[in-house]
Amino acid sequence: MGDKQIINIAVAGASGYAGMGVVRLLSKHAYVNICELGSGSYAGRPITDLYPDLSLNLEFVSEVGGENADVIFSCLPHTESATRVKNWLEITHAKVIDLGADFRLKDPSEYQKWYGVKHQYPHLLEQAILGLPEVNADKIKDARLVAVPGCYATASIIALLPAVTSGILSGHVIIDAKSGVSGAGRTLSLTAHFSEINESMHAYAIEGHRHIAEINSVLHQYNSDIKVTFVPHLIPITRGILVTCYFQSSTDVDEIQSLYYHFYKNEPFVKILSAPVDTKLCLHTNMCFIHVGKQDDTAIITAAIDNLMKGASSQAIECMNLMFGLRRTEGLDLPAWWP
Amino acid sequence: MGDKQIINIAVAGASGYAGMGVVRLLSKHAYVNICELGSGSYAGRPITDLYPDLSLNLEFVSEVGGENADVIFSCLPHTESATRVKNWLEITHAKVIDLGADFRLKDPSEYQKWYGVKHQYPHLLEQAILGLPEVNADKIKDARLVAVPGCYATASIIALLPAVTSGILSGHVIIDAKSGVSGAGRTLSLTAHFSEINESMHAYAIEGHRHIAEINSVLHQYNSDIKVTFVPHLIPITRGILVTCYFQSSTDVDEIQSLYYHFYKNEPFVKILSAPVDTKLCLHTNMCFIHVGKQDDTAIITAAIDNLMKGASSQAIECMNLMFGLRRTEGLDLPAWWP
Amino acid sequence: MGDKQIINIAVAGASGYAGMGVVRLLSKHAYVNICELGSGSYAGRPITDLYPDLSLNLEFVSEVGGENADVIFSCLPHTESATRVKNWLEITHAKVIDLGADFRLKDPSEYQKWYGVKHQYPHLLEQAILGLPEVNADKIKDARLVAVPGCYATASIIALLPAVTSGILSGHVIIDAKSGVSGAGRTLSLTAHFSEINESMHAYAIEGHRHIAEINSVLHQYNSDIKVTFVPHLIPITRGILVTCYFQSSTDVDEIQSLYYHFYKNEPFVKILSAPVDTKLCLHTNMCFIHVGKQDDTAIITAAIDNLMKGASSQAIECMNLMFGLRRTEGLDLPAWWP
Amino acid sequence: MGDKQIINIAVAGASGYAGMGVVRLLSKHAYVNICELGSGSYAGRPITDLYPDLSLNLEFVSEVGGENADVIFSCLPHTESATRVKNWLEITHAKVIDLGADFRLKDPSEYQKWYGVKHQYPHLLEQAILGLPEVNADKIKDARLVAVPGCYATASIIALLPAVTSGILSGHVIIDAKSGVSGAGRTLSLTAHFSEINESMHAYAIEGHRHIAEINSVLHQYNSDIKVTFVPHLIPITRGILVTCYFQSSTDVDEIQSLYYHFYKNEPFVKILSAPVDTKLCLHTNMCFIHVGKQDDTAIITAAIDNLMKGASSQAIECMNLMFGLRRTEGLDLPAWWP
Repeated sequence: MGDKQIINIAVAGASGYAGMGVVRLLSKHAYVNICELGSGSYAGRPITDLYPDLSLNLEFVSEVGGENADVIFSCLPHTESATRVKNWLEITHAKVIDLGADFRLKDPSEYQKWYGVKHQYPHLLEQAILGLPEVNADKIKDARLVAVPGCYATASIIALLPAVTSGILSGHVIIDAKSGVSGAGRTLSLTAHFSEINESMHAYAIEGHRHIAEINSVLHQYNSDIKVTFVPHLIPITRGILVTCYFQSSTDVDEIQSLYYHFYKNEPFVKILSAPVDTKLCLHTNMCFIHVGKQDDTAIITAAIDNLMKGASSQAIECMNLMFGLRRTEGLDLPAWWP
Repeated sequence: MGDKQIINIAVAGASGYAGMGVVRLLSKHAYVNICELGSGSYAGRPITDLYPDLSLNLEFVSEVGGENADVIFSCLPHTESATRVKNWLEITHAKVIDLGADFRLKDPSEYQKWYGVKHQYPHLLEQAILGLPEVNADKIKDARLVAVPGCYATASIIALLPAVTSGILSGHVIIDAKSGVSGAGRTLSLTAHFSEINESMHAYAIEGHRHIAEINSVLHQYNSDIKVTFVPHLIPITRGILVTCYFQSSTDVDEIQSLYYHFYKNEPFVKILSAPVDTKLCLHTNMCFIHVGKQDDTAIITAAIDNLMKGASSQAIECMNLMFGLRRTEGLDLPAWWP
Repeated sequence: MGDKQIINIAVAGASGYAGMGVVRLLSKHAYVNICELGSGSYAGRPITDLYPDLSLNLEFVSEVGGENADVIFSCLPHTESATRVKNWLEITHAKVIDLGADFRLKDPSEYQKWYGVKHQYPHLLEQAILGLPEVNADKIKDARLVAVPGCYATASIIALLPAVTSGILSGHVIIDAKSGVSGAGRTLSLTAHFSEINESMHAYAIEGHRHIAEINSVLHQYNSDIKVTFVPHLIPITRGILVTCYFQSSTDVDEIQSLYYHFYKNEPFVKILSAPVDTKLCLHTNMCFIHVGKQDDTAIITAAIDNLMKGASSQAIECMNLMFGLRRTEGLDLPAWWP
Repeated sequence: MGDKQIINIAVAGASGYAGMGVVRLLSKHAYVNICELGSGSYAGRPITDLYPDLSLNLEFVSEVGGENADVIFSCLPHTESATRVKNWLEITHAKVIDLGADFRLKDPSEYQKWYGVKHQYPHLLEQAILGLPEVNADKIKDARLVAVPGCYATASIIALLPAVTSGILSGHVIIDAKSGVSGAGRTLSLTAHFSEINESMHAYAIEGHRHIAEINSVLHQYNSDIKVTFVPHLIPITRGILVTCYFQSSTDVDEIQSLYYHFYKNEPFVKILSAPVDTKLCLHTNMCFIHVGKQDDTAIITAAIDNLMKGASSQAIECMNLMFGLRRTEGLDLPAWWP
């Protein structure tokens, strides 16, 4: 391959679902060399214990140093991630892509409100760029630190952005979100115990969910009067998020559809469909599919993503591609699957 | 059994899911004798071909005559049901409980609007009583013809009734409904094909769903200003409906909860829970579980039922119990299951 | 209810799946009064925290004393159960039904081999009766201590008993077993984590599973030459076990079917079906459905049970009914569900 | 891309699951141009009605002519496929890859026995090469007509080939197979109706399944004394086959494992794992994962594939790669997914 650029990458938290997605996608990425994988629980064990499908001759390390990395993906729990990211930024030359929540919000008081702890490194919040290419592609290209937004926030923002920027939505919007169980991660919990959630469903965080702050932080850039009500539901599927957004509008449905088509016509990973979207169509891809409908005076926007892909791992790689001057779709041009 | 009352029953459409639920519940009902089961597709075959768990020595008939029946359950498609019900009312002495859509609406023009055909027997609409005991228990006792409401309508009405009657809800309400696949019945369709819907979800009928008319027909009895937006979603579970209802309210959440507790405190099949409701808890029972919450100024009511039980078969038997002077819970005092 | 016998019951381990099944079934049992529920993790909390569907005014205790109980159901982990059972037998007058593994095997060396610890109370092994009514109904009636067999053992023994007692099977049998995830209990584990097992399946315990000892202990009573190969598989459903048993036989399939029909014709909870058995048909009931087939010279017996019912909770209550002179089907005459 | 070879392809039956898999995989294949897609039910409609994720500007045709195709994939029902394949071979210059059953067996009497009709073109059976690269890679390279084996046959043959060729297995083998529902295809049936099979499982074709003939046809090439008992089971997952194979063997498990490792060490799509195989690990890839175990004297081989990939679509493309001199893994080097 001659002088082809090779990006050395490290992944911290490589035994969680977001980390596993990053590793497996990068294992097939033409410009990447995986050089360091971190996991507290698998430290010292060969990679193949967790990734029997791969042929990487590496052992998990307990803490990712990142000295040889061009980019470090941080898939660690919040607060732990903040500390490690700060160190990598100081000690290494690597760029950092954080898939956690520590650098998504600009306002440290919002962080404290939703996460219940004071942010330790508020100065880094200014530096961090939200890793949502549909909003921030240019800024991501030059960023040292990128914070990939949460899965619910990604779907909700992409679903509402054309309505907010056009002014069609300027007041109250209700987002009824439904998510597969993998959104709860690989950490054991009764909520994610098979027999508890299988063949059932329920709403949660009815009083307020952390991703509301992320949604607001983007939408309020365009219109600070937007008022979001957001209720997530747990659905017994592994992957997939569907958000159903309701707001009042006197604009014709055809006009709203047209507006959405034009807004996203050059985006490689957003597509407006004429039929209601099925989450299955976006599984294992970086796509967001959107449908625009109305019922009487209520506009109803539905959007679907794979919560572990566009909602986490593949969006992180989309950011990496931008940060290293690659095609944005490099390594992400994956086939859809049906069924 | 001495002088115990025995109710002879017939079921038309006994090879569909609603019919199967009625038959299996009645097979364990202390006051019932199953004397006639109808099915076009199984006509002439022994009952045990479809019900291998039962020991009934009967054959399916192609059309239920109902001559010996005290009550006929009609689980037939709409329009077909209307014709058969009319005949049973004229020719037999049996009471009729229709699980289909033909006699749920009072206004024939509403029927025509949503079902696309003119109602053939509009005079029967006046006579029919909506089989929702939480609203109509007294009227059901004396009815000759009872129309059991649809599954979405049952859950939505029970969820909103205290809010509407108290005046807390007097304007716009958004109902985001999620249903298991059995709501689509036993008739084959691509939508209900396992590989198409498994591990997926989608909204449907975004422009308007037939059950809106049923919801309106009850809620507008109390306040004709109520404006319902209703969007159903298909979820890959067999049974269960969850409705999430959003409306603006300045009333405290504690007060709304208290109001709901009092409204339903004497109802045997409605229970207000302090934690968000799981659909699994109501599976295979006649229960409706409700949770009352708020997010800022938006009241959020979630309610769960088994769409084939309280949403169809067991609610039909609850009506039968009322019509024959039995305890309302007779044959319906079933254990919940977890997991 | 006049002089009706009331059985006071206590359940230890009432926050696990087997215990929950016992409690919910007994909450509808006409002859039972629930007086004491034990749970280490819920001690001190009201029953309704875990059983929101019930209206029992009780708190969980950390340890079940059983002083007022006529019968104690022990749904505790093995070894812990043994100690508690020993104490109850000494200190209380209650009969004891153990749903765990401590008293199922007669030979303490077999226990040590499979469970890796020495049995503390080998003298109790002689006293304990295996709670499988299809084998031991008479002995159960007079027992003080009943050990309900494991779910796999229950299905396998019922599937093979007619073949073994008739001599049709006298050598090697392969049992390929498939189980829903609830068999792993409510204790958190990666194996039972929704996203790990959903949409997947795998074999486990290929070198040997504990239930082999239980199967052997019964089948060898009739023929000590029987050689069992048993491999369980985990299937992503909540409930249900299917065992597929293969053995060589020159007997005609009709003759084997006939033999099975006659063997079980008076058993209330076993039914031979002419079509291959679906596990769904036995869910939430105490039934075992069996199909008898052949492929060339290989007899193929399939049997289905609900692993938490006939494989645990409802079989325990079936034993209780026998121990207290009630109809064996009391409280267990539950409708099948489809779908 | 300069002088890069471009293969023009046509797919007949492009609205079934096997056809959809072929189309979506080829839509990302670097050396392929999709020029003709056939579907009886979608004829005349734009491709995007069924493939909303693709940007192909084509309409479905009712019958694939194949005049401009270098290779035609036939995903048609058996007998219909035979006729069309015969015509393509006569009229066009295209190579043909048949994913159906018409050309898998060499012996027309075997075809008639299992499919109930006389084979119309027995002379083509001699010409056809079984499209199982682990067995036939060299022959596939030169073939005009390739018949991709069935999903069960693919998994079973790959699982047993090292044992048969080495002589470890020389007599009776029991294959207990478990399959996801997509194996039943996209044609509607009660068996594949969501509410019927969800949360259930059952054995079927107990007296004998068509794939036995395919398994025999390969294994008997090496040892005609092999005797196969094969029973398939339907499991409520979309994709995935697990075969559990049991045979008597006195060889140590380590030795059998070693034999398997060496047999497949150069195969790109077969990997021996040291832990029991999960079907999830092979989903959406062309991989077959195998585990070798023993229980006493019984060797137990488990193998997992994605029934629509290695069991159909991706194996067909693997054959195409061979037939056109491409890397065997071209377009098939897909990441595994977890969860």
